[in-house]
Amino acid sequence: MSSLAADLEEAARIGADDGGVSRFAWTPELAQANEWLVGRLQELGLETEIDAAGNVLGRWEEGEGTAVLVGSHLDTVPRGGRYDGALGVLAALEVVRTLKHEGISLRRPLWIVSFNDEEGSRYQTGMLGSRAFIGDLDPEDWRRRGVADAMAAGGFDFERLGEAKAVDRVGAYLELHIEQGPVLEQEGLDLGIVSGIAGLLGFRVRLSGEANHAGTTPMASRRDALAGASRIVLELRDEARSRGDMTANVGILTVAPGGFNVIPGTAEFTIDARAGDADTFARAEKFVRDTLERVAAEEQLELEVTKTHRKPPTPLDPGLQDLLAQGAAAEGATARSMPSGAGHDAMVLAKHVPAAMLFVPSRAGISHSPDEYTSPEQCELGARVLARAVRALVAA
Amino acid sequence: MSSLAADLEEAARIGADDGGVSRFAWTPELAQANEWLVGRLQELGLETEIDAAGNVLGRWEEGEGTAVLVGSHLDTVPRGGRYDGALGVLAALEVVRTLKHEGISLRRPLWIVSFNDEEGSRYQTGMLGSRAFIGDLDPEDWRRRGVADAMAAGGFDFERLGEAKAVDRVGAYLELHIEQGPVLEQEGLDLGIVSGIAGLLGFRVRLSGEANHAGTTPMASRRDALAGASRIVLELRDEARSRGDMTANVGILTVAPGGFNVIPGTAEFTIDARAGDADTFARAEKFVRDTLERVAAEEQLELEVTKTHRKPPTPLDPGLQDLLAQGAAAEGATARSMPSGAGHDAMVLAKHVPAAMLFVPSRAGISHSPDEYTSPEQCELGARVLARAVRALVAA
Repeated sequence: MSSLAADLEEAARIGADDGGVSRFAWTPELAQANEWLVGRLQELGLETEIDAAGNVLGRWEEGEGTAVLVGSHLDTVPRGGRYDGALGVLAALEVVRTLKHEGISLRRPLWIVSFNDEEGSRYQTGMLGSRAFIGDLDPEDWRRRGVADAMAAGGFDFERLGEAKAVDRVGAYLELHIEQGPVLEQEGLDLGIVSGIAGLLGFRVRLSGEANHAGTTPMASRRDALAGASRIVLELRDEARSRGDMTANVGILTVAPGGFNVIPGTAEFTIDARAGDADTFARAEKFVRDTLERVAAEEQLELEVTKTHRKPPTPLDPGLQDLLAQGAAAEGATARSMPSGAGHDAMVLAKHVPAAMLFVPSRAGISHSPDEYTSPEQCELGARVLARAVRALVAA
Repeated sequence: MSSLAADLEEAARIGADDGGVSRFAWTPELAQANEWLVGRLQELGLETEIDAAGNVLGRWEEGEGTAVLVGSHLDTVPRGGRYDGALGVLAALEVVRTLKHEGISLRRPLWIVSFNDEEGSRYQTGMLGSRAFIGDLDPEDWRRRGVADAMAAGGFDFERLGEAKAVDRVGAYLELHIEQGPVLEQEGLDLGIVSGIAGLLGFRVRLSGEANHAGTTPMASRRDALAGASRIVLELRDEARSRGDMTANVGILTVAPGGFNVIPGTAEFTIDARAGDADTFARAEKFVRDTLERVAAEEQLELEVTKTHRKPPTPLDPGLQDLLAQGAAAEGATARSMPSGAGHDAMVLAKHVPAAMLFVPSRAGISHSPDEYTSPEQCELGARVLARAVRALVAA
């Protein structure tokens, strides 16, 4: 078994949970994984630190200037898979192992990171560690959600979160991750070079019509809130399918009063819409709003819309994408450029430094599940391409 | 104020509930209304009985042969209106009052009835009183639902329900009721002569697809259970609208797992479909089943269907409909023939005796609500037409 495959097996035992893995921020399970990682980093001769935000850092301090940062996260969703996050951290470990084995000298520092709380599983505080690393704190919100108490229980001091800011010493960020979608597998490709993180629009919508008796109200007299919601579900899907450059989802829907023989008087639902670049994001936002207003008017329903999310797309660095593409070509790997539909720490880092991501395939597109799987060969190929890009950035 | 309007006011005070009326089977509120009714019947010189099922009967025993039965029910839905049910009972009282005042002799008996538990508000045992009256008992189901205990608490004996059967002494049933829909008001008509009670089909449907990440799963790879349900909602509505001889409603719908960024893996919903005669009922049933199967197949969803209701349409008696039409013409009232989308005691009686129903308009089609309203003039016109039909059936 390769070192990477062995590391993946070993890490998956920490927080093992009924076939999956559960490691959440400031819990003993994640602390144990962090301690294990610190040990691995020290074996490679790196300077280690668990910073004020709970990020684990391993520093190969050599050469001059800003560091190249490589990593991902070790925290998970509840009963998540063993690859989401962990693969990126352990591949970074493999990269350093390889470069050390080659005996190369660095012209600039190389750091490994495992960001804390990427998933935000406990308090919906996703990417808290990387946000602290770039100095983007939201202490009021985080305190209200319970982060301060959780940190204290885990031996951390909420007041010192600001000390985790270290992005000024970093010049580039690279992250290997599983795709979490089926595109690479379906297209029979080895790797995805991520062009950017899709922008996310979130809405909560309430349509109000009139609850009436389903047996005695003529079809033409109905103001059926569920019929309006159904049209919106389908029109968003049709648009996303035909455009091909956005996704749309209605994941939560409730109707009231909820009687078998009562026409739905209200329907409440969420919309999650994503698009990969600024233009398609703007078009998607306009389409969602226009569709809501048009359908509500045509169905004679009252419309209330609350915007719950608006994260514009994050383009990733073209130069680093080229480096990854060159690495893939050198390994004889097939690759495509693709957006990431999910958010990642790279999205946070990209606000301050050139950042890039490399995807390996996810079997059947499954993630956030014990069924998450990427073969050892696919993981190792990803790590080798990552090593090529890192080597090009740091080798003296 | 007319006697009928005064009776409606007085009855509405019994069980008054925040602007509406709440009188449920075997509760003190309905018992009080029944006692009040018994008093009114006795004032008119009728023989009174509260039978083993809690039906209130007033008998004008004169002439020979089977009785003409006229009435409706005094029980209500929770916080219901003052007309649904009560109008039919009090209009029957008004009919007897009129005939007594005219001093006519009967060639056959004339009975008034207030059936118990038409709404089934407590135990979903709708039309229990009229079913007992025709001898159609379902003791196992009723006992399981709690009827035996409720009857005991109200001073009745569940074991004696069978004694309420008296339909063999009845030769015709007439019921005045509010429309509970907006058709008469929209068409500016005074009365509806009910051609039959629509048949009711009920289904519980479960569609299963695949819950996946809404950001990373390509639109073309999704098996979205809510998209399938939305198509069914709209295709049933389109069919019902374009045919004009059926109704369809999806009143309950839930999706799971119910996450903002998770594609719905399952959708569960109900279907209520109604049609007025045997042919359209059969077509509606086939359409519902075909649509479910076609959409599930096209959307690659698994389909589970449970039939929860199947009550074929009940045609009402043509001869009695003619009598009501003649009465309307004699009063100079405008009328149309129409099906009833809701169930009524007349549906139960029609299994054994010629039965007919007369509708008066419901303002804005509202019922089962404190906002239910029919003007005194509309109620009185209905009662006069009812009196003409009854007179033709019973006058010596």
